[in-house]
Amino acid sequence: MDALVKGVLNKQISAAAEVIRMAEEEAPEIYGYLKQLYPYTGNAHIIGITGLPGAGKSSIINLLIKYFRGQDKSVGVIAIDPSSPLTQGSVMGDRIRMMEHANDREVFIKSLTTRGWLGGLSKTAARITNILDAMGKDIIILETVGVGQNEVSIMNFAHTIVLVLVSEMGDFIQTIKAGVLEIGDIFLINKIDKNDPYDLMTNIESVLRNEDVEKGCWEKKVILTSALKNDGFDRLLECIKEHRRFFLDKKDSFLLKRARQEIKEEVYGSLAGHINQKIDQDSKTNKILKKVVSKKEDPYSLALKLLKDFNIDKNI
Amino acid sequence: MDALVKGVLNKQISAAAEVIRMAEEEAPEIYGYLKQLYPYTGNAHIIGITGLPGAGKSSIINLLIKYFRGQDKSVGVIAIDPSSPLTQGSVMGDRIRMMEHANDREVFIKSLTTRGWLGGLSKTAARITNILDAMGKDIIILETVGVGQNEVSIMNFAHTIVLVLVSEMGDFIQTIKAGVLEIGDIFLINKIDKNDPYDLMTNIESVLRNEDVEKGCWEKKVILTSALKNDGFDRLLECIKEHRRFFLDKKDSFLLKRARQEIKEEVYGSLAGHINQKIDQDSKTNKILKKVVSKKEDPYSLALKLLKDFNIDKNI
Repeated sequence: MDALVKGVLNKQISAAAEVIRMAEEEAPEIYGYLKQLYPYTGNAHIIGITGLPGAGKSSIINLLIKYFRGQDKSVGVIAIDPSSPLTQGSVMGDRIRMMEHANDREVFIKSLTTRGWLGGLSKTAARITNILDAMGKDIIILETVGVGQNEVSIMNFAHTIVLVLVSEMGDFIQTIKAGVLEIGDIFLINKIDKNDPYDLMTNIESVLRNEDVEKGCWEKKVILTSALKNDGFDRLLECIKEHRRFFLDKKDSFLLKRARQEIKEEVYGSLAGHINQKIDQDSKTNKILKKVVSKKEDPYSLALKLLKDFNIDKNI
Repeated sequence: MDALVKGVLNKQISAAAEVIRMAEEEAPEIYGYLKQLYPYTGNAHIIGITGLPGAGKSSIINLLIKYFRGQDKSVGVIAIDPSSPLTQGSVMGDRIRMMEHANDREVFIKSLTTRGWLGGLSKTAARITNILDAMGKDIIILETVGVGQNEVSIMNFAHTIVLVLVSEMGDFIQTIKAGVLEIGDIFLINKIDKNDPYDLMTNIESVLRNEDVEKGCWEKKVILTSALKNDGFDRLLECIKEHRRFFLDKKDSFLLKRARQEIKEEVYGSLAGHINQKIDQDSKTNKILKKVVSKKEDPYSLALKLLKDFNIDKNI
């Protein structure tokens, strides 16, 4: 077993940071490390927190960290929100709120930006989740902005998904209808001290399809909170615990779905890197590209030619 | 030349709708149609309108449609915002605003949802842009929610990119900092009748990097508008026209970048479909997946095996 792998399993922060760096940078050795770490994964409770910037995700996460640390559980946070004040430089800078955990060695916060190349973000998020899981984190929190396919696909790696909303973002409910609503387990309407939450609550409840509860599905919950006043937070913890019990009962079908998604992201992410390189740097491809611009060639024929190189035949 | 291709070139709505349907559904014949239509593209002015739900994108688009129709220009709209009231059923339902164009044959509105499979959305958006371009649309408006990589990559296909913001979404500026800010040409702060825009304006102006204007780059503009009061709209039109002139001067480098992106999306999207099928339906892969769940196998080895099948060798 590699020293770095041993280090991660022994909860060494420097070892974990090093393996995470390699996972992000696509170092060729990363596969060997991930393979060795994989058998040690599967113990963490992975909680997804998703919602638009300004909904109050980081306050909620802060409260969760406090709660779980109080129970002597170690926590990892992976922030895939470019606006997240958790670690990233932010314009408005309310990241100060998370700084209180900066000296707690049992809290590992990692921020990913969306700058990474096309398709790679979910893959990297999945890899880092596994690294933190193998490192023995009891709780792993995945934070995303919750709009767009990438964010939705990252949420496939979370066990319990909390959607954070605020009333003033009423229109957001239209967005979440198309995708995120289906994946949410708990709907949290935050900042109820500032805005009347009842219209939004009625709206959400009207679109939640809880008719499958009798068939053994999870009954999706709507919770009202005010992170500012520390209100409604007990109910959130209760729901998270309840969902955990529910989840552990039907773990296997989730794990199969997750493995499927993980492999897709791995294959997909690596291919994307390969395609980018081929199209950006290959001189033959670049010659054809110039012909595409001058309309002597079309982009579709070139795409089909490249697909053939990848062993995929499409007839036209 | 196929009858459908002729139909599109003759501005037949039914023909365009049929080719668009095939592009969305990945019908194998679509390549033939897209290839034949491609030489007729390149005339439309493609305007990207991006911003969070609730920022007022559809009012702005509505005003743009009115203006361009008043100049006797034909307009196509591709809405890639699942919350868009343009055509989609929406919970809140302010789509009525766009309905005034429903009987105008020179306005073609097409809504795409994010339900499509992973990676396919940008590809489909690019295809439909080309179809509407070949159909002779003078103006094509691409509407996206502007958060997440998919939306950013779709904006690669627009010539002039307008970012719609509102003051109350102050935190959004943090999000756009990481990606969208770089691609925006015009920043529109909307609903100034409701919120004081000056803080947000100062914030945006402080992060805009206009130091490259002397080197011939576009000088990014911030505009204050109230779609409700029809205020600031003249300035938006002026900026759009000014950017058009700028764009036409340096068209070639844009077109090369766009062709590159288009081919990437094509190859990438098709591969994604192929990978999904392989991982979801192939019985051999499914056997290994079960072993991954029980930790007898790891997802990384399976991913590497699949990559080999696609002619991509990675050493580990």
